[in-house]
Amino acid sequence: MSRPTKSSKLSHVDERGRVRMVDVAAKPETEREAVAEASVRMSAEAVRAIRSQSVKKGDPLQTARLAGILAAKRTADLIPLCHQLPLTHIDVELRPARRGRGYDIRARVGTKARTGVEMEALVAVTVAALTVYDMLKAVDRSIVIGPVRLLEKRGGRSGHYRRKR
Amino acid sequence: MSRPTKSSKLSHVDERGRVRMVDVAAKPETEREAVAEASVRMSAEAVRAIRSQSVKKGDPLQTARLAGILAAKRTADLIPLCHQLPLTHIDVELRPARRGRGYDIRARVGTKARTGVEMEALVAVTVAALTVYDMLKAVDRSIVIGPVRLLEKRGGRSGHYRRKR
Amino acid sequence: MSRPTKSSKLSHVDERGRVRMVDVAAKPETEREAVAEASVRMSAEAVRAIRSQSVKKGDPLQTARLAGILAAKRTADLIPLCHQLPLTHIDVELRPARRGRGYDIRARVGTKARTGVEMEALVAVTVAALTVYDMLKAVDRSIVIGPVRLLEKRGGRSGHYRRKR
Amino acid sequence: MSRPTKSSKLSHVDERGRVRMVDVAAKPETEREAVAEASVRMSAEAVRAIRSQSVKKGDPLQTARLAGILAAKRTADLIPLCHQLPLTHIDVELRPARRGRGYDIRARVGTKARTGVEMEALVAVTVAALTVYDMLKAVDRSIVIGPVRLLEKRGGRSGHYRRKR
Amino acid sequence: MSRPTKSSKLSHVDERGRVRMVDVAAKPETEREAVAEASVRMSAEAVRAIRSQSVKKGDPLQTARLAGILAAKRTADLIPLCHQLPLTHIDVELRPARRGRGYDIRARVGTKARTGVEMEALVAVTVAALTVYDMLKAVDRSIVIGPVRLLEKRGGRSGHYRRKR
Amino acid sequence: MSRPTKSSKLSHVDERGRVRMVDVAAKPETEREAVAEASVRMSAEAVRAIRSQSVKKGDPLQTARLAGILAAKRTADLIPLCHQLPLTHIDVELRPARRGRGYDIRARVGTKARTGVEMEALVAVTVAALTVYDMLKAVDRSIVIGPVRLLEKRGGRSGHYRRKR
Repeated sequence: MSRPTKSSKLSHVDERGRVRMVDVAAKPETEREAVAEASVRMSAEAVRAIRSQSVKKGDPLQTARLAGILAAKRTADLIPLCHQLPLTHIDVELRPARRGRGYDIRARVGTKARTGVEMEALVAVTVAALTVYDMLKAVDRSIVIGPVRLLEKRGGRSGHYRRKR
Repeated sequence: MSRPTKSSKLSHVDERGRVRMVDVAAKPETEREAVAEASVRMSAEAVRAIRSQSVKKGDPLQTARLAGILAAKRTADLIPLCHQLPLTHIDVELRPARRGRGYDIRARVGTKARTGVEMEALVAVTVAALTVYDMLKAVDRSIVIGPVRLLEKRGGRSGHYRRKR
Repeated sequence: MSRPTKSSKLSHVDERGRVRMVDVAAKPETEREAVAEASVRMSAEAVRAIRSQSVKKGDPLQTARLAGILAAKRTADLIPLCHQLPLTHIDVELRPARRGRGYDIRARVGTKARTGVEMEALVAVTVAALTVYDMLKAVDRSIVIGPVRLLEKRGGRSGHYRRKR
Repeated sequence: MSRPTKSSKLSHVDERGRVRMVDVAAKPETEREAVAEASVRMSAEAVRAIRSQSVKKGDPLQTARLAGILAAKRTADLIPLCHQLPLTHIDVELRPARRGRGYDIRARVGTKARTGVEMEALVAVTVAALTVYDMLKAVDRSIVIGPVRLLEKRGGRSGHYRRKR
Repeated sequence: MSRPTKSSKLSHVDERGRVRMVDVAAKPETEREAVAEASVRMSAEAVRAIRSQSVKKGDPLQTARLAGILAAKRTADLIPLCHQLPLTHIDVELRPARRGRGYDIRARVGTKARTGVEMEALVAVTVAALTVYDMLKAVDRSIVIGPVRLLEKRGGRSGHYRRKR
Repeated sequence: MSRPTKSSKLSHVDERGRVRMVDVAAKPETEREAVAEASVRMSAEAVRAIRSQSVKKGDPLQTARLAGILAAKRTADLIPLCHQLPLTHIDVELRPARRGRGYDIRARVGTKARTGVEMEALVAVTVAALTVYDMLKAVDRSIVIGPVRLLEKRGGRSGHYRRKR
């Protein structure tokens, strides 16, 4: 069972796109953390609906936080090649957008494991953002999600990553 | 069990943010379809890695399609107030980005049900985009997902919606 | 594949406890609703923690509502012989207990299907109650859940059931 | 990302009920065990149906045990702020009730982890009890579940807890 | 979004292996049933362990039945391109093998839907067989599963299929 | 809570088939690996459909690999008495059959845990095989899966197991 390396030019047809969950057995268990962010842009009416607590389905911010936390725990079930990681903490926060109208959603996720939690943080903010959309779509169907991105990552062989502004 | 209407100003503490899965029993089962899109922006190196089939985890485009399809079927499990809908078709497509470097992911989802499939289409493209990120993060950690948005929606009381460019 | 009837005295060893998901194909799709209730008894300190919003994990009532709604949708995954039912609405409500100290949790669940939603309503209130326990266990480990019971059931062959007080 | 402490009086609107999965990274991995109990009260007819193995859906006790075991493993998926814990053993037992007519269900669950397994034991007995209800509801719709409570807990910083009778 | 037909020779690279969940919206909802079978071959010692009820993990036949039923309901979650179908009945049966030593597992699954339940029946017998393996592997690691095959299928456009012996 | 040993002759009715998830707390965490195989036999037409990439649902081999990987991660959810194990790698491979027409599917799965990953490897190959069936059933409904078996197992108290040919 030979494994193509990152630099290999795979030419054999059978090898094209042959997916695998890469081996992390040799990596040590270390503390790792990742922070991701997703922005949600919406109409003035949608923002008003949130602020006045008059959304038919209930409070979008509370619901979004919980949906993000639950989804982070299910990352390995959603993203096919992710390893299952026991998360030590998950924190999802929604704040009025710094740019434009809407909210910036930030998730901080931690683990003590052989591989990082970028995907868990990204899944958390994304599902939180989709939940905001779901609860407000009766008010504003043109809500836009994004940019979604990794802000920071700590622990593991690749060291500390911090996104440049 | 009185239900606050969209226009109500809810002041009672117990009522703040009280979530519910809204009643759709009175709505007829009709054919519905939704199309959503998510863009993924990445470095030239990341695009090259996809094109040369030299990504360590396997082919990101194939994997993303499947991840999107599987996630769409689990929408009601991820988005707390979504109804469970039996989807009649799901199609996820990745194309070179029209703007910038990367891919535009489009999902078309259908059902015959009492409520629409916007969320299913949005979940499909988002999880497909996250899967692309996951498979390429060893090459480029600064990949950005978004905008994610609904392009079109058909069927149901609210009629045909098509996003303005 | 003969099927034992309710009145049968099953003596054959192979037949003992042979589980099955009973056939509902011949039953018509009708509107059905069920209401269930679970009580949660707790210390004065635990009630104060909820009221003063000083629970470390966040607001237990909001979280319990959402957990109940999500669990109701997963009933067929949890209760082995339940049929999968597309729910038309789910409403979970927490009120100060009528008797004792704590909360009474009530769920109303609906569907248009071949079989009833008692289990969905019971799962909703039970998981909501367990969530309250989880969020308050740092304050009071001796919280008691129960009674949990069906209050009402409507639709289907067996007619309207209403629990006697 | 400041975190409110248990004693804080949270007044800021954004902070009300902001849920989080609390950080356990600093806690050591230790052996932990929890025992929970749920009682199920039922009519004489329902007890007879179990004893004579004449329940249409199959043997409720066997099915309840398995449902409880499976549910315990899914605790973090059901209870929003629970950590994912790899369980080392799960044992679910049903015995004729000490008080009243019916069954007492007891679950013993263990792990080697950073946080306890009270919720896993409580989920196991509760889902086992709901399964008993499901299998007997054709015979007796007025079955009552409860009390459900933690009997014992061992391991971890808070030491040995044993419920007073 | 053009769709390749079964007979097409797909040459475009982007089209290679592009998966989709095929559209069933135009198909009528009809009653459908499928029967599948899986055989499990094992050592004389393993058979004795089952018969004498001396398997450490508990009764393999009971557990296998339930595991098969639960898995059938999760087919669309396991088999990527399967549609979600509300099953009307599931029956899993284990009998002493007609050929060789071991058990023949048969599942009968029904639905009223737009597409068939072959996969549900096949998933049921396969997961039941794997459960038998799991419970007996301490006694016999060389247990073999198979053949696994569809025996019969009814309902839907393709008519009645019955496997030739 | 006394536990029946493997050699015990359980006579008490309540004890018959009482399932449990056996205790692994005392076992050390060691590196473990398992390799399993499933064969899929099909018609010449089905093989041609795969090779010419003309399967309506997309490329069966790619999809099967992913389905196998995802299913392996869900083993404890499918096989009732399996422990939840964090897998360090999963590799699923499909090759033209050595005997007969069709494919041999092999999965290699690893972990660092208190119990082995035979079931994870067996689940991976089985779900991969079922996925191949699903994608080709429109072409050939008589596809047969099997034999499915464990080829090799390493790590843990029971030592190295290698299946005899």
